[in-house]
Amino acid sequence: MTPTDKKLIQTLKGETLTPPPIWLMRQAGRYLPEYRATRAQAKDFLDLCFTPELAVEVSLQPIRRYGFDAAILFSDILVLPHALGQRVWFEEGAGPRLEPLRDAGDIARLSPGGLHDKLAPVYETLRGLGRELPQETTLIGFAGAPWTVASYMIEGQTSRDFATAKTWAYRAPEEFAQLIDILVASTSDYLIAQVEAGAEVLQLFDSWAGVWPEAALRRWCLEPAAEIVRRVKAAHPEVPVILFPRGAGLLYEAFAAEAGAEGLSLDTTVPLAWARKWLQSRVVVQGNLDPLLLVTGGAALEAGVSKILETLGTGPLIFNLGHGITPQALPEHVEQLVAQVRGWQPGA
Amino acid sequence: MTPTDKKLIQTLKGETLTPPPIWLMRQAGRYLPEYRATRAQAKDFLDLCFTPELAVEVSLQPIRRYGFDAAILFSDILVLPHALGQRVWFEEGAGPRLEPLRDAGDIARLSPGGLHDKLAPVYETLRGLGRELPQETTLIGFAGAPWTVASYMIEGQTSRDFATAKTWAYRAPEEFAQLIDILVASTSDYLIAQVEAGAEVLQLFDSWAGVWPEAALRRWCLEPAAEIVRRVKAAHPEVPVILFPRGAGLLYEAFAAEAGAEGLSLDTTVPLAWARKWLQSRVVVQGNLDPLLLVTGGAALEAGVSKILETLGTGPLIFNLGHGITPQALPEHVEQLVAQVRGWQPGA
Repeated sequence: MTPTDKKLIQTLKGETLTPPPIWLMRQAGRYLPEYRATRAQAKDFLDLCFTPELAVEVSLQPIRRYGFDAAILFSDILVLPHALGQRVWFEEGAGPRLEPLRDAGDIARLSPGGLHDKLAPVYETLRGLGRELPQETTLIGFAGAPWTVASYMIEGQTSRDFATAKTWAYRAPEEFAQLIDILVASTSDYLIAQVEAGAEVLQLFDSWAGVWPEAALRRWCLEPAAEIVRRVKAAHPEVPVILFPRGAGLLYEAFAAEAGAEGLSLDTTVPLAWARKWLQSRVVVQGNLDPLLLVTGGAALEAGVSKILETLGTGPLIFNLGHGITPQALPEHVEQLVAQVRGWQPGA
Repeated sequence: MTPTDKKLIQTLKGETLTPPPIWLMRQAGRYLPEYRATRAQAKDFLDLCFTPELAVEVSLQPIRRYGFDAAILFSDILVLPHALGQRVWFEEGAGPRLEPLRDAGDIARLSPGGLHDKLAPVYETLRGLGRELPQETTLIGFAGAPWTVASYMIEGQTSRDFATAKTWAYRAPEEFAQLIDILVASTSDYLIAQVEAGAEVLQLFDSWAGVWPEAALRRWCLEPAAEIVRRVKAAHPEVPVILFPRGAGLLYEAFAAEAGAEGLSLDTTVPLAWARKWLQSRVVVQGNLDPLLLVTGGAALEAGVSKILETLGTGPLIFNLGHGITPQALPEHVEQLVAQVRGWQPGA
C-alpha cells in the first residue's frame, strides 16, 4: 500500500470517500483504561511524551481498539517551549505550568539552537510508529500554533482571558512579534523534522485563536500559520497540512482562502451548512462533533453524528470531534460512533 | 426631555447619531476607586446588589465621571436563581457559588412564586436611579439569558467547558427544557417588572452562548431569547431590547434575523465589515472594543476605537466593549476612549 492509497491522504487530496475516514483529537487519552495503565509507568506527563516506547504504545492503543484511519503522534504542544529552554512541568490534576516569560530579555534568551537534540525522542516515537502502524493507517505529526504556544509561555499556564499575553501584544507588538517569529521558525523546523521521521500529515493546533478581534487574529494566528505552511511546503510539498484555529468563527473562511493548507479542522460551533458552502468548497474539512456527546451517548450522539455526515459527508470530510475527547467519554460510546460512521451511506 | 430624545433610545429606534452614544458593560466596577470605596460598605456582593442606596450610588459613579449616555442597573444575573429559592453566594476573589441543581426534583422545587418580593430591592434601585439620573441618560435594566443562568444553576460556579450542564441538556432534553421554561417565564416577568420600575431599555446577557453547536444554540439560546422578547413586547411594545449572545459567531446573523430584538451586542471577535453587511442592515449593533485595550491604552486603543467607528459608525451604533471592563482597566484610558468617541467625525 503506497501512502496515496491511505484514506486520510486520499481525502486530503480532495477525494470524497464514502464513508469518510475517521480519527479523534486526543484519541490516545485518559478515557481509555489501557492509556491509564501505560501512563502509570511514566514518572510524569513529560516523561510519557519523551519515552518513545511508552509514547508509541499509547499512540497505538486507540488504533488497536477502534481501527481509526489515522494515528496521531502522542506528545504535547509544550514540548516546543521546553526545547527552546523554558522550564515546563505538569502538575497532577492542575495542567501545564511554565516559568513565564516576563520581558524582551526573556524572549531573547530562548535558544532554538538545541531544538532537534531536545526533541529527538519525539522523532524516535514517529519512527517507531512508522514501523508498528497497520499499513492503511496514516501517521499524523503535530505542533501548537505560535499564538497558542506563546500564550502558555507568557501566562505560565492556561488562562481564562489571556490578559497578560494579549496586553503584551497590544502594548508592544514588535516585541511580541519577535516571540511569534521565533515560534514560526522553530515550529516549521520541528514539523519538517517530524516529516523526515515519518509523519505523513501535519496538524497545527491553535486552541486559543478565538480570543482575538479580526485584525489581531490575522496578525497573530492566520499569518503565522500561513508562513509555517509555506516553510513546510518548501521542504515537503507533498505533505498535507490541517489547521485548527479553534474559535475562529467567521474567520474560518479567511483560513480556508488564505492559509494554503489542505485541511481545516472545525470546532463544535461552526455551523455545518455554512461550512459546506464557504469552507468545503475550498478545503477539506475535518470535524466537528461535540466531544461531550461521547459522554452522554444515546440518541443525542446518533443525531449529532448524522447531521455532520448528511451535511458534510457528500464532500471531502475527515470525521472528527470539534475539540479533544474528554476523560469522561465512555469507550463504548466511541465504539457506537465509529460503527455509525463506518456504516453510513448518503441518504440511507 | 422625553424618553425619545435620549440618544440611546433614538439609536435603538434606528437613527444614526454622529458621534454614536456610548456606555460600557460593567462600567460600574472595580476599576473605579469610588466603586471600591462603596463596595467596602456592603457586607458582601449580594448585599451590595440588594441595598438600593448603595446600588444606586455605584450605578451613578461612571455617569458622574464620564457622562455615559446610559446607566445600567447595578445588579447580578444570579439574583434570579436566588429569587427562585436556590442558594447563591459570592466568595471573595473566587466568583459566584450556587448549591447546584442535581436532578429533576431540584428543578421542580424552584419556586417562582416569591420572585417579585425577593427582587423588590432591585426595583427600588431602578426607581432611585429614575429620580437621580441626568435627564439625557438612558436607564438600562438587564437579566441573564436562560442558558447562561441555567449553566450556573447546574455547575454551581463558572466552568471551563460546562460539561455538567451540557451533558444534562444532551442526555435529558425534556428535563433541561423544564428548567429553561421556568427561566424564560421568570426572566420575562422580572424584565417586565424592571420596565415598570423605570428601565427604558433592556439587555439580556447570554455570556456562555459560545459553547454550543448550531442546533443546540438555536434551541437553548436563540428560541428562549426570542420568547422573552415576545413576552416583554406583549407587555411593553415600546421598550427596546438588546441581546448579547456572546460567542455566537456566525449565528449572530440568526439572532439579527429571528430574535425580534432591536439591538445586538457584538463580542470582540465579530468581524466589523461582516457585522456592517449582515447585522447592521437588520438591527442596531452595539460593541465591540476588546476590554483589554482599556488596560493597555495608547496607540492600540486609539486604533481599535477608530476601526469600530469607521466601519460601524455610519449606521446605527451604540459604542461599547465586546465584554465587561476588567478591574485592571485604567480610568484615564476610559477617559481617552470617551474623548475619542465624542470627538469623532466620519472620514475626518
